[in-house]
Amino acid sequence: MDGKSSSNTAGKPIRCRAVIARKPREPLVIEEVIVAAPKPREVRIKIICTSLCHSDINYWKLEVDSCSRSKFNKSIVFFLLMLINDCCFLLKRSPAIFPRILGHEAIGVVESVGEGVHEVVEGDTVIPMFLPDCGECADCLSKKSNLCSKYPFHCTPWVGRDETSRFTDMNGETLYHFLFVSSFSEYTVVEVARVIKVDPAIPANRGCLLSCGVSTGVGAAWKAANVETGTTVAIFGLGAIGLAVAEGARLCGAKRIIGVDVNQDKFEIGKKFGVTDFVNPRNIGDKTVSQVIIEMTDGGADYCFECVGLTSLVHEAYASSRKGWGKTVILGVDQPEAMLTLSSFEVLHTGKSIMGSLFGGLKPKSDIPVLIKRCMDKELQLDAFVTHEVEFEDINKAFDLLLQGKSIRCVIWMKE
Amino acid sequence: MDGKSSSNTAGKPIRCRAVIARKPREPLVIEEVIVAAPKPREVRIKIICTSLCHSDINYWKLEVDSCSRSKFNKSIVFFLLMLINDCCFLLKRSPAIFPRILGHEAIGVVESVGEGVHEVVEGDTVIPMFLPDCGECADCLSKKSNLCSKYPFHCTPWVGRDETSRFTDMNGETLYHFLFVSSFSEYTVVEVARVIKVDPAIPANRGCLLSCGVSTGVGAAWKAANVETGTTVAIFGLGAIGLAVAEGARLCGAKRIIGVDVNQDKFEIGKKFGVTDFVNPRNIGDKTVSQVIIEMTDGGADYCFECVGLTSLVHEAYASSRKGWGKTVILGVDQPEAMLTLSSFEVLHTGKSIMGSLFGGLKPKSDIPVLIKRCMDKELQLDAFVTHEVEFEDINKAFDLLLQGKSIRCVIWMKE
Repeated sequence: MDGKSSSNTAGKPIRCRAVIARKPREPLVIEEVIVAAPKPREVRIKIICTSLCHSDINYWKLEVDSCSRSKFNKSIVFFLLMLINDCCFLLKRSPAIFPRILGHEAIGVVESVGEGVHEVVEGDTVIPMFLPDCGECADCLSKKSNLCSKYPFHCTPWVGRDETSRFTDMNGETLYHFLFVSSFSEYTVVEVARVIKVDPAIPANRGCLLSCGVSTGVGAAWKAANVETGTTVAIFGLGAIGLAVAEGARLCGAKRIIGVDVNQDKFEIGKKFGVTDFVNPRNIGDKTVSQVIIEMTDGGADYCFECVGLTSLVHEAYASSRKGWGKTVILGVDQPEAMLTLSSFEVLHTGKSIMGSLFGGLKPKSDIPVLIKRCMDKELQLDAFVTHEVEFEDINKAFDLLLQGKSIRCVIWMKE
Repeated sequence: MDGKSSSNTAGKPIRCRAVIARKPREPLVIEEVIVAAPKPREVRIKIICTSLCHSDINYWKLEVDSCSRSKFNKSIVFFLLMLINDCCFLLKRSPAIFPRILGHEAIGVVESVGEGVHEVVEGDTVIPMFLPDCGECADCLSKKSNLCSKYPFHCTPWVGRDETSRFTDMNGETLYHFLFVSSFSEYTVVEVARVIKVDPAIPANRGCLLSCGVSTGVGAAWKAANVETGTTVAIFGLGAIGLAVAEGARLCGAKRIIGVDVNQDKFEIGKKFGVTDFVNPRNIGDKTVSQVIIEMTDGGADYCFECVGLTSLVHEAYASSRKGWGKTVILGVDQPEAMLTLSSFEVLHTGKSIMGSLFGGLKPKSDIPVLIKRCMDKELQLDAFVTHEVEFEDINKAFDLLLQGKSIRCVIWMKE
């Protein structure tokens, strides 16, 4: 059955509904589109549901004439914006490209597969993924890396690997991809290296969360930092990623999880994810956050996670980590030009380490199924992340909720 | 027998010979000195042999009026200079203090012990150590830290913990300590937290090396970086510490050990310690060292060690480490003011880590006996480190050899 399918639509273009971002900041519109058949080593997926992440919003906001490296929004929560921005800079292709189909957190079912696809077949439940996992290169074969060398991240922005889009509108105009996924469409086409087969028993509105943000946070605690039982964790920024770090740390058996955020409401929210203590930088007088955390923990936290994307906060996180074994993991990113500046002397004689982590250090094809299982076993608690659910037609409501800071994750359901 | 001893000299001052540094850069002189009896929790040791390290030389060179933080010699190989300098700065006590008894790499036999010492008894073969290991604090009890909290490094410079010296000359003048060891004396007094009991079968002229520099390098590969079999290592600077990193990496089963040094002769020397490849930054044209190493290794070294003490070289080491899993360990240190400046973006999206390491991450009391055993089992090869051996009377020759770059380690023997 290699490259073949019993599906009626296999090998043919599919006409379906998709949400198109035609212009920055303008309400999204549902239109009919044509989704091409998958090319070799590609998979066409019927999306069940998708969730909205800040990266979708940030790209939707992006003005076409504001895409120099320095004009990027500095307050972003998530690293992908800058990663892609950097790629675009290298490729001289603007990251603010319209019209496009956004969306990158999703779950769906394989509708058909292109030539040479052996990994999944029609009917498989799958999660599409921005991060590739070819399974063949030195990185994908190593337990220590999740940075595929065969398909480095900067190779295919906004279209397929062959430099053509799989989406066209009814006027024949090209619609650009987003993060290799474009899940705000009833059907999408994704490279098989970015498709994870998962247990179909996972509730779709939980499974879709594992495509990106929630996995990044949980993975950062589980894989990148390898949080040990009975330890103390400090999380700088309790957005979705920070809350997911808390959930990951709780799952790893951390004894104490300190959330740091300027929004006091985040303490109550954080408690649902395992946060035990809270530091509001606005309520600590003349002290620095690191001074407060060092006092609270009698020497510093065992693990610190920077989830905002401010270099100054990375410095504070590093200062908050314990001498001897403290580990600081960077999840957010500042401007591409931003530099971390650490005292050579301090790095040397404190024995503390600092590292970055893309997708929390998770290897998509091997680690996501583990998270799925732990979710089904009620160990990994994803329920509290889903604050809202809407129908596909109401996707603008999902955008409004996230823009207003009212949602952590809003799940968007396709019609059956 | 707690606090007591059958030694004839126990509890009394001992008159013996010591090498005294009376003035900076002036030839050392052997004089008779009085070594006080050990106070509570202290051990008096009869030194068998001692070896000369760059730190001894650096402190011997230090002009009393040149000890502001900014005037320190920038070219030092070893981190202790700055560490101590920093402590002195905090305590407003000059690191250039004379007259003093230098020396901190040694092996000896316990002559007598002070009150409350249970860990060693008269006749035990011991290695005195600059780094304390109290065995009681959270750090000493943890497998992950070697930075004792009970006796932090900056508490007792140049004298005993009670702020008095154990050494006086025949005119009753105080002689200052050095690095808590002062091994250029037939007898010395060291806190029991800094005394390691070792197998007496170890050849003394090998065992003494494990007090400091050689252990630091071997430990950096073995403990701090945890070098895995079949991996690639790059070492920036092939001084004694860098060569010891090579030996440690060889012992860990590294497949390829790349030495980086501007002195071409270091390749032949390095081969004795397991160095397989060599990069001379002066012979690579317009390329950077990291470009050359990335080409040689098809992506970067698995582990990079900076052993010189130049921040610019730390940056190059970090750039030379492989994406996905590369680990950079800092062993040298620049000026206390020197800052490491890393791209936040690069740290985030490459998954590489950077860490410092004091004494190679070794825990003195548990790890040194392991190194001793591996040395006796002929696994750890220390022979090539000992390029010269002299009698105590010829200690100035040992200084000359190291100053001229002719020795790696010169062992100085006390008379029986």
